[in-house]
Amino acid sequence: MIDDVVRSAATAFESYRRFTGRQKGELLRAITAHLEADGEAIVETANRETSLGQPRLKGELARTCNQLRMFAALVEEGSWVGARIDRGKVDVRSMRRPIGPVAVFGASNFPLAFSVPGGDTASALAAGCTVVVKAHPAHPETSRRTARAIAGAVPAGVFALVEGFEEGIELVKHPLIKAVAFTGSRRGGRALMDIAAARREPIPVYAEMGSINPVFVLPNAMRRRGAEIAAGLHASVTLGAGQFCTNPGLVIAAHSNEFLDELAEKIAATPCAPMLTPTIAGAYRSGVEKFATIANRRSFVDGGAALFTADAATFLHREELMEEVFGPSTLVVECESREAMLEVARAIEGQLTATIHADDDDDFNELLRIVETKAGRVVFNGYPTGVEVVPAMVHGGPYPATSDGRSTSVGTRAIERFTRYVAWQNAPDAALPDELKEANPLRIARLVDGQRT
Amino acid sequence: MIDDVVRSAATAFESYRRFTGRQKGELLRAITAHLEADGEAIVETANRETSLGQPRLKGELARTCNQLRMFAALVEEGSWVGARIDRGKVDVRSMRRPIGPVAVFGASNFPLAFSVPGGDTASALAAGCTVVVKAHPAHPETSRRTARAIAGAVPAGVFALVEGFEEGIELVKHPLIKAVAFTGSRRGGRALMDIAAARREPIPVYAEMGSINPVFVLPNAMRRRGAEIAAGLHASVTLGAGQFCTNPGLVIAAHSNEFLDELAEKIAATPCAPMLTPTIAGAYRSGVEKFATIANRRSFVDGGAALFTADAATFLHREELMEEVFGPSTLVVECESREAMLEVARAIEGQLTATIHADDDDDFNELLRIVETKAGRVVFNGYPTGVEVVPAMVHGGPYPATSDGRSTSVGTRAIERFTRYVAWQNAPDAALPDELKEANPLRIARLVDGQRT
Repeated sequence: MIDDVVRSAATAFESYRRFTGRQKGELLRAITAHLEADGEAIVETANRETSLGQPRLKGELARTCNQLRMFAALVEEGSWVGARIDRGKVDVRSMRRPIGPVAVFGASNFPLAFSVPGGDTASALAAGCTVVVKAHPAHPETSRRTARAIAGAVPAGVFALVEGFEEGIELVKHPLIKAVAFTGSRRGGRALMDIAAARREPIPVYAEMGSINPVFVLPNAMRRRGAEIAAGLHASVTLGAGQFCTNPGLVIAAHSNEFLDELAEKIAATPCAPMLTPTIAGAYRSGVEKFATIANRRSFVDGGAALFTADAATFLHREELMEEVFGPSTLVVECESREAMLEVARAIEGQLTATIHADDDDDFNELLRIVETKAGRVVFNGYPTGVEVVPAMVHGGPYPATSDGRSTSVGTRAIERFTRYVAWQNAPDAALPDELKEANPLRIARLVDGQRT
Repeated sequence: MIDDVVRSAATAFESYRRFTGRQKGELLRAITAHLEADGEAIVETANRETSLGQPRLKGELARTCNQLRMFAALVEEGSWVGARIDRGKVDVRSMRRPIGPVAVFGASNFPLAFSVPGGDTASALAAGCTVVVKAHPAHPETSRRTARAIAGAVPAGVFALVEGFEEGIELVKHPLIKAVAFTGSRRGGRALMDIAAARREPIPVYAEMGSINPVFVLPNAMRRRGAEIAAGLHASVTLGAGQFCTNPGLVIAAHSNEFLDELAEKIAATPCAPMLTPTIAGAYRSGVEKFATIANRRSFVDGGAALFTADAATFLHREELMEEVFGPSTLVVECESREAMLEVARAIEGQLTATIHADDDDDFNELLRIVETKAGRVVFNGYPTGVEVVPAMVHGGPYPATSDGRSTSVGTRAIERFTRYVAWQNAPDAALPDELKEANPLRIARLVDGQRT
């Protein structure tokens, strides 16, 4: 069954990979139209399956459609392929080309924007790849409903939905699948990485896994804005019941009673929100219980938000405190000195984000240099949740935040993940893709004989 | 010992990664000056160790220095980082940054251009990565001599040379190494891929492995230019005793007695050339012996050039004929029909190159579509050997030609392999790298609010 689906995707790739940017744009816009036409039912279905609430899900559907439109505009404009032409002794011309059929694993926490019609699907289709999505079991009806919207807008085989744990593994092992995209747990992501690496032909896996998104609060910022930062952090920690990959699960802060009291009070007053699935709720509960045996549980709501504190020495000696607790929990590591803060910064693993709260007179240069090597995105005087869908965005980061720290899963650069470079040497103009033809019929930006045009 | 070397590389990375483009350019040009100053002795040493001959090695040294200068110019200009700025609701700025200390494995067949001072080292240093090279045992003195030239031009720890098989493995396993580049056999490359994938933190491996570089000769081209193509092919097959990764080891051709006779005659008249090492010579001899048990040995020189023929059915049923025989040997698969030729094209694995000899009235469109998915570079009416060092070059290709078909190891894009994207959000101007500062002090090409500047 998986074999049939993948074979169809591979057959469809033969023609879909030759779609022009305009044709792909049209297709992505058609998907958007189908999703919007069925929007009310999609949001209702997603709400029933995820308890995320209508307002959030309406916003997420809008974001999902915006992502599709962003990639439509990108491929319609066409310069994204990075065309290069050198007309020296031999004529060499090259550009990005689609890599092949792609397997996408839907995420539980974004039933639309990182699931069936989400950023991975949008960027892979934009690149010219056909897509087989493995539905997340937490929202099967939403997956099927959005899959129907996509399938109704594209030629047969360009898109397909499959379900089931074993089916997902079979998909990653299938020789005709050429890349994998995944958003989920570290364990799940690593398992797919290992399967892909053990294939006869290893293939790239883009797994966006866990992250604790450290937030550093420096002494002067803490003294002047401690209460304000506590309020901002609380909102970021508890947003969507903490079920975001950019949730700040670790705060490394100069000591401040005011800050801690304010944060503790707000955490204790946080109403319990239903979590995405019983499995996630159970994992959250045991994660919090485990933390309570190592760190100080400063304030908490039974089955809800939780605040822990620890000193730097404890944090540095207990690796478990670096594990992600997926949900509305955070750990404040109080640092008595700049050196202690830097030592914690040096000890943390790869992250999607790192945040620095600093005033002009705080000494943050060394810290900045360290966190730049640890994270895909460095945030100043803000909070890591809320990932802008803009061309410059980097939603990635060194392992174990992602499987491939060179890439981003948000923003237009996400398309690069599903491409490879191909060169043509001394090819007749008619045999070249339009992007590389001498007359530049698509009027795209190119690098010709070393000059940008 | 390896641990000390890698720790030094990691320490040096802390400052080297912040070198400006101008500083890195200066450093790369200083390496070139050192290599040129010692050029005569380097060429002499390399000739003694490889038997490649002075003319070839002088040319290779010039190429090696040109590569270093190409990357110097690239980083001095600075736009290669792909800077992007979005000044919307939040200010997001991003660019490529160096990935960390890199392990480079020198190749046997290019003792300079793909060894210690070769393209991998040049592109990694240009990216801002420190480099530890594992010397190839086939030219230890050349490795040491060129390593001294590099080490004399860079700060301590930025570059180091290590030797030994076990040491190479230790290097790939070391937690502070963040990427690996390799040029060599499929077995060696795959072993490094497997080691890197099994690390606690898996890291990218750029292994450029074997390739048989199929050359397709279509009926009309064959009828009109058969003898000429035979002469060109012979030169390409026997160049450097066939010890190039772009050596054409497979010819898929319309039947032509004239072509085969001409090729056979030229092969039989090829003088024996010494091979790089006794191991390579031994592997060549047994590869040729193995082919002789499956295909027809049409002509050969004892211990030298060899020409085999087989029909399409034999080729399609005997996987061994798709294995690389590193040396001056080629296999001509005669195809009676267009469909047979397409079937062979569909069956071949990933390649560095695929070549099509076709006249205007040959029907090559379908073949072109197939080979585009199999190769990193498609050559028309030419020969795959001779890789131009130009910005548009792609020296890569789907597995098993390389470990990572998304990348190239020749041309300016090779620098991308050793980078990852990093974003800064709402950062004060002074905290940003120069490439992302509001005033664009480096005057580089950027994408600002979606517009190329």
